Amino acid sequence: MSTETRDTVFIGKKPLMAYVTSALIQLANLPSVNIKARGMSIGRAVDVAQIVARKTENAGYAVGEIKIGSEALESQDGKTRNVSTIEIEIKRN
Amino acid sequence: MSTETRDTVFIGKKPLMAYVTSALIQLANLPSVNIKARGMSIGRAVDVAQIVARKTENAGYAVGEIKIGSEALESQDGKTRNVSTIEIEIKRN
Repeated sequence: MSTETRDTVFIGKKPLMAYVTSALIQLANLPSVNIKARGMSIGRAVDVAQIVARKTENAGYAVGEIKIGSEALESQDGKTRNVSTIEIEIKRN
Repeated sequence: MSTETRDTVFIGKKPLMAYVTSALIQLANLPSVNIKARGMSIGRAVDVAQIVARKTENAGYAVGEIKIGSEALESQDGKTRNVSTIEIEIKRN
């Protein structure tokens, strides 16, 4: 999967603006971008989406569909834990 | 605003299941409930929504509309900071 064609930004531990920049680059090339995160990074995904939406609103972009879900992950003690996920779309209105 | 009529659960620092219980009580009396949080609590709001939706899916409830936003807050050093917000609806399909 090349950087040029993927339409998803996964939120991790980098500084917030790194993900904002990735999302803006993708919106320069594609009609929409999905910002995804899970667990502790979910709040940061909302931050990134809000910043990107604010920076691109004059160009007609806005927050689109928002989905939440959960994934079963095996933790280090061998137990299965559910972790919440979020997916926020930014798209041209 | 009495406990009986409000349809919103604000997520704070209590144990997760306290908010799950509040939401379930409200769904026993009202057709929908809104789970709200801001900043660091946003991930926990998604956790609560997922647990409530899973516990009530057999009764026909599911995650409804999800909204994100931001609020300007004045921090202790007098600067204005933006904090992200989320609002997740759980409703009968």
